Parts: sequence; structure tokens; C-alpha cells
Amino acid sequence: MIEISIATPAREVLVDITQKVQSAVTASAPALTGMISVFVPHTTAGVTINEGADPSVAEDIAETLARLVPADAGYRHAEGNSDAHVKTSLVGNQVAVPVEQGRLRLGTWQSIYLAEFDGPRTRRIWLIPIPSIAGTSNQA
Amino acid sequence: MIEISIATPAREVLVDITQKVQSAVTASAPALTGMISVFVPHTTAGVTINEGADPSVAEDIAETLARLVPADAGYRHAEGNSDAHVKTSLVGNQVAVPVEQGRLRLGTWQSIYLAEFDGPRTRRIWLIPIPSIAGTSNQA
Amino acid sequence: MIEISIATPAREVLVDITQKVQSAVTASAPALTGMISVFVPHTTAGVTINEGADPSVAEDIAETLARLVPADAGYRHAEGNSDAHVKTSLVGNQVAVPVEQGRLRLGTWQSIYLAEFDGPRTRRIWLIPIPSIAGTSNQA
Repeated sequence: MIEISIATPAREVLVDITQKVQSAVTASAPALTGMISVFVPHTTAGVTINEGADPSVAEDIAETLARLVPADAGYRHAEGNSDAHVKTSLVGNQVAVPVEQGRLRLGTWQSIYLAEFDGPRTRRIWLIPIPSIAGTSNQA
Repeated sequence: MIEISIATPAREVLVDITQKVQSAVTASAPALTGMISVFVPHTTAGVTINEGADPSVAEDIAETLARLVPADAGYRHAEGNSDAHVKTSLVGNQVAVPVEQGRLRLGTWQSIYLAEFDGPRTRRIWLIPIPSIAGTSNQA
Repeated sequence: MIEISIATPAREVLVDITQKVQSAVTASAPALTGMISVFVPHTTAGVTINEGADPSVAEDIAETLARLVPADAGYRHAEGNSDAHVKTSLVGNQVAVPVEQGRLRLGTWQSIYLAEFDGPRTRRIWLIPIPSIAGTSNQA
């Protein structure tokens, strides 16, 4: 398992971690062909893949989640961050990204985001390099 | 990595891709036991597993998402498809499906759906065959 | 593939399955280093990882989903459980959890939950043990 850490700058913000993930794969699994599982070991932050070209998309995602799951909606949990827990379960805390010969394979517009819902904090991310079966670099 | 492509017929629609995924596994990884990771390399379409028997379930999912995340809600992103980006992060763009001896193992009522939120388009899907450890076809 | 089963006590409830998953890994894949894929083969129940210390967090998640996706909202599907199908696609039905030497590696506050949306029922869960590449237990 490979661990990276990310300092998030605000309470609710998506932080592009694509280059950090790529650097960790290059350093620790440079010959990997398969996928890298990106796992967030927190309960008020998740991970999502979405557009990286226009930063307003990430803002729209954070703001829409804030509208759907307001911070103050009469929750049971007494710590004042129930919205962050709910958003984490909506977005998810794990995704597996294709890798070929140590290079992340993402779509043209895709970036990997840590989805912070209760920052600012320093967050850890765990990466698991998973090999695919040999001989499957073909197209159907 | 195996690539398949799907033409989607409408702006917001779930398209059953189960048979296409099975055919690609049969062609490229016929002896696979483990799982197939289904990864959508787009930012306005995702993947989800849900009921395949009654097509009204897929319609209910698309319509409920349209209610929760309306197309016109004062987004920042200027391309007019912010709702599609947000829905993609809610549904997710990757899922791993169990496979045994080259056959998808899904629950009785499950189908794999490409969740189109900004079609009609031709979408690509990337499949990564991942082996499990040997000798785990037992039940606990 | 390893199968476990869980009896859920209510229509909408998150049931902590962490210990059941750990027991199954211990019994069937005690030397595993990599991850365990947790796959729910149902269409009205999913799986999510969230806080396990304060049970009110799980209640907040179930109640917020019930507010966003009400049981009675004019759905097409005639079985009266469309809300459960929609919630399953929002939460997801699969997640991969890090494992080292047969032990689940979760964050301090994390538990794995079966997210029941149409119980009470007996639910099955399929576990797929996936090895990582050798020699990646380092930190970047």
C-alpha cells in the first residue's frame, strides 16, 4: 500500500490529486499494468473523478451537494458535520483507475479529485496497485 | 485493457451494457476468475448496477436524478451541462463486477448500465480484467 | 468468491458488516495483501463506508436519503420500492477495501455498512479477494 497526503484549503472543496497519484505510481509501481485503487480512509471526505479542465465544474459539484445536503438540517450526530458524512456516502470513498505501464489511463477531460467536505485538514489517501491478467491490452 | 463503445439514444438515459461487457470478457478474458472493472472515461456519463427486468426502474433513476439536479440551476460551468457532471459524481464512473470462469456473476435482477447524462453520444467504456487469488471459490 | 449473508432489521437501515467481512477474509484468504471487493448482488441495497463509532451517523445517512428520495414520489416502477432502487444507485453496490496480511485496513473511524433500503430481508454479499503487486507496502 502506498500512502499520500493532501492538505485541503477549505471546508468544502474538490482538490485535484491526479498528479500526486501519478507520481506515487511512478515511484512505487512503475511497471504496473492494471489499475490503482484510490481509497480515502476518512469519513468526511471522498474521491470522485470528473472534469479537470474547467475548475468551475468542481465548484458546481461542491455547491450542488451543499444544496442537497445542507450543513444545518436537524441531524442526530452531535459533531455538526453530518452533512459531510452523508456527502461522503453519496460520492463514495474509493475508485479504481486504469493504469498501463505505470501511466494512469484517464479520459481526456478526467481528473481524480479528493472531495473534501469537512476541511481544511490534512487528508491521507491509500493507493493499492492491482495487476490485470496478462495479455489483455487488446480492443473488443 | 478492453475498450467497447455504446451509442446512447437520448440526453438522459440508462443503457443496459451487460451483454456487451459479457461479450468482451468472453472474447478477451475467457478464463478469468476474479472481477472485471468497468470504467467510464467520460465526465458526463457514469456506470451503475440496478434492476434489468423492469425498464421503468432505469427511468425512475434518471428522472429522480433530474429532479434532484435540475439542468438549469444557476451553475458556474458555462457549457450548460453542469447537471450531467454532478450526476456523474453521484452515480460514479467505475464499478467492479465479479467474474467466474469468464462469466459475469451478477445478482438475479442486476444489469450493468451506462448512465448517460448528456447524450445522445457515442461513449467508450474501458474494461480491466482482474484475477482473484487462487482457490477462493468457496463460501463462508 | 466468498459469500456471506446478513439479516437486516428494518426497511431502511445501515448494518455494520465490518466484522463479518473480516471473519470471511480470515477464514478464506488469511494471507491476502491487496484488497477485498465487497459486492452486493441486490438492486435495493448497497454498500458504503462511513463512521462506525457513533451510530447516529448511519441514521443521518438513511434519513437524509429518505428526504432526498421519498418512498412516494410518483414513480413508474409498480412495486412500490423505486426509492430503494434509486438510493442503491446513489450509494453504489460495490467497494474495494485495502487488506494487508489478511487484515482489513480501514481508517480509524471507518466501518463497512450494508445499506438496506427495502428490508427487512436476508441479504447476500459477495467478497472477491484481489492481490496487489508484490513489494508495494511502502509509502510515497
